[in-house]
Amino acid sequence: MSRARLEAFSDGVLAVAITLLALDLAVPAPGPGHPSLLAQLGDRWPAFVAYLISFFTVGIIWVNHHARVADIAKVDRTLLFLNLILLLFVVAIPFATSTMAEYLTAGGDDARYSMVLYAGVFQGMGLAFAAIFEWSLKEGRLHHPIPMELRPLVRLRFSIGAVAYVAAIIMAFFSPLISLTIIGLVAVYYIFEQGPRRLRELQQR
Amino acid sequence: MSRARLEAFSDGVLAVAITLLALDLAVPAPGPGHPSLLAQLGDRWPAFVAYLISFFTVGIIWVNHHARVADIAKVDRTLLFLNLILLLFVVAIPFATSTMAEYLTAGGDDARYSMVLYAGVFQGMGLAFAAIFEWSLKEGRLHHPIPMELRPLVRLRFSIGAVAYVAAIIMAFFSPLISLTIIGLVAVYYIFEQGPRRLRELQQR
Amino acid sequence: MSRARLEAFSDGVLAVAITLLALDLAVPAPGPGHPSLLAQLGDRWPAFVAYLISFFTVGIIWVNHHARVADIAKVDRTLLFLNLILLLFVVAIPFATSTMAEYLTAGGDDARYSMVLYAGVFQGMGLAFAAIFEWSLKEGRLHHPIPMELRPLVRLRFSIGAVAYVAAIIMAFFSPLISLTIIGLVAVYYIFEQGPRRLRELQQR
Amino acid sequence: MSRARLEAFSDGVLAVAITLLALDLAVPAPGPGHPSLLAQLGDRWPAFVAYLISFFTVGIIWVNHHARVADIAKVDRTLLFLNLILLLFVVAIPFATSTMAEYLTAGGDDARYSMVLYAGVFQGMGLAFAAIFEWSLKEGRLHHPIPMELRPLVRLRFSIGAVAYVAAIIMAFFSPLISLTIIGLVAVYYIFEQGPRRLRELQQR
Repeated sequence: MSRARLEAFSDGVLAVAITLLALDLAVPAPGPGHPSLLAQLGDRWPAFVAYLISFFTVGIIWVNHHARVADIAKVDRTLLFLNLILLLFVVAIPFATSTMAEYLTAGGDDARYSMVLYAGVFQGMGLAFAAIFEWSLKEGRLHHPIPMELRPLVRLRFSIGAVAYVAAIIMAFFSPLISLTIIGLVAVYYIFEQGPRRLRELQQR
Repeated sequence: MSRARLEAFSDGVLAVAITLLALDLAVPAPGPGHPSLLAQLGDRWPAFVAYLISFFTVGIIWVNHHARVADIAKVDRTLLFLNLILLLFVVAIPFATSTMAEYLTAGGDDARYSMVLYAGVFQGMGLAFAAIFEWSLKEGRLHHPIPMELRPLVRLRFSIGAVAYVAAIIMAFFSPLISLTIIGLVAVYYIFEQGPRRLRELQQR
Repeated sequence: MSRARLEAFSDGVLAVAITLLALDLAVPAPGPGHPSLLAQLGDRWPAFVAYLISFFTVGIIWVNHHARVADIAKVDRTLLFLNLILLLFVVAIPFATSTMAEYLTAGGDDARYSMVLYAGVFQGMGLAFAAIFEWSLKEGRLHHPIPMELRPLVRLRFSIGAVAYVAAIIMAFFSPLISLTIIGLVAVYYIFEQGPRRLRELQQR
Repeated sequence: MSRARLEAFSDGVLAVAITLLALDLAVPAPGPGHPSLLAQLGDRWPAFVAYLISFFTVGIIWVNHHARVADIAKVDRTLLFLNLILLLFVVAIPFATSTMAEYLTAGGDDARYSMVLYAGVFQGMGLAFAAIFEWSLKEGRLHHPIPMELRPLVRLRFSIGAVAYVAAIIMAFFSPLISLTIIGLVAVYYIFEQGPRRLRELQQR
């Protein structure tokens, strides 16, 4: 069973999911007495913020999925199903994004639970990716096994995201906007944090 | 005619179909006097259950399509059209899923026929996949032909799904919920049942 | 410039277009006093017929695109733009399909022009594909050039489709249903007509 | 980190985005007292013009992306994120296209700002592509480095597009239709302008 189709299918799902994100930006067609386009775009700021955060979070998952899967020596059925669980959450991102964007400004419990849903889907995606990482550690599964002494560092990297999403879920009940800020900062963190140097060298071999 | 584009096109269709499934989860934007988000998400439980079942059923078809096609020695026109018929049903899954999810709680004949539609599309997909399997048995079509003594076992595996979907269609007239449970159990069965050991070894060669 | 990305991009567009076709099958969610699901599905028979015809027409284009492009020795800018024009019509198929399905039963001029639109998009796709074929005839463009004596036969094959679509467009003004039947028969014709035997042998080398 | 998945993911996003463009062409289903189909299609001329311009602009980006990336010797994290930024704008094109098509005939500020949005998204896409080009100039990043004496010519090509989009944005405040014409001419320019001859030879090696 080849790595090529695992990558092709995952790339396909990630590409469709990331492209569907922008469908939520749509503004209603002009009708009698409609507000001006500028006013409508302004009112929809949560949709634009949500688009940016979701786009880059899916983009980071793609970059990391790429690096991890490229080194896998042998695809087995367990990996295929772990990958399906990862994609289950990826596919749910356009839904979670649009729900959050629409209910954030509704205030009250609606805003809170929409943010819990949003952070929860990202948490699920992150945990599924961490499970793929753990699967890859067993002997013989990677061409260039991650050295023992680096593993705690990689696990720490995963944990920072997981803890931040838990914080975002808890914070959602107090301030959905602070919660959204945390989720955005996670994306910024993963864009700039590149993992320990030796790990990057391993991946580039 | 190469196997590569057959795989690429099928992966593309499967990836788009699986990603469109989540569009049905969408909740209406908040309006005056709208029910709370939590209440709406709760009311939409059939959409979430349907999403899970359809996602994993398409996922299993992808995993199995992958294993079967990877061993094909020569792509001919018959295979291309059998594969198109398989994809005809795959493409209809988001439609069948959303129709079932919306009409399940309407009760009466609507719930019954929506479940017949849902089980029927899965049945069509399963039979098309079985036809691809039968096509592959003719001499010279696989790199590693499936040994004669294993064929009844593989056919039994297909038959279990086919019989279960017939049962789901009949049961839909008495209890759509039991019917849905059967369809979900078929997915669970195929996730954990991996085929006879020698067959797996053949596929991994 | 490699053939691989031309194939990958075309497969992607064809896969997305073919999957979007089924979105038109959607039935409105149940509301107060809504007609039964069976009645709604029955009323929507043009959508199902249109889905079948469009699905197989796109499928045939994919099969033939596959066979033609696989033999191309060198991709140039002209081919890329001819291919873009082909895709321009492919991308318009879900739109033409849903418009035709919705307006066919409206009767009168609406039914007529919706069928002209439908046949016209298929005609455009067929002509773009014929242009790619003509491009491929120049020396050095195919690994296995099509022998001179076979070219009239291949051109005849293209012409049958082109003439049939013209007939469908004219017939649309008298009877949209006969027009639809012609378009369906073109798909059936291309599924079973496989081109002269020597050409198939050439393509399979 | 391989070029193959960068291409596969980009092709996927471009293919989905280009196919979603046609969803905006959809005409409402016939209802009581609805205008004729011909009248509706006629009223929607901006949607058809916008479809053509956006389709070919995305198509050109695909052709050029193809040529540029095919020669890259080593994919690094910076390139992945520059590419993500390019895709961020590509994904926004269906949204910008439909908004422009719907608001162009609304007149006044709505038409103006919809055209600014449309030209702005194309400008963003062009600048992201220019950034990928600049990234590729550093030593060792291309298999066939672009000769020093050709670089000003290539930069001039990029600048023509960038200046034209700025002109389109300014012109949008005076005449959205002239602005739209400029954007369409940019597409026509890039279809026929193929870059200096030596550069093309380099790319074809």
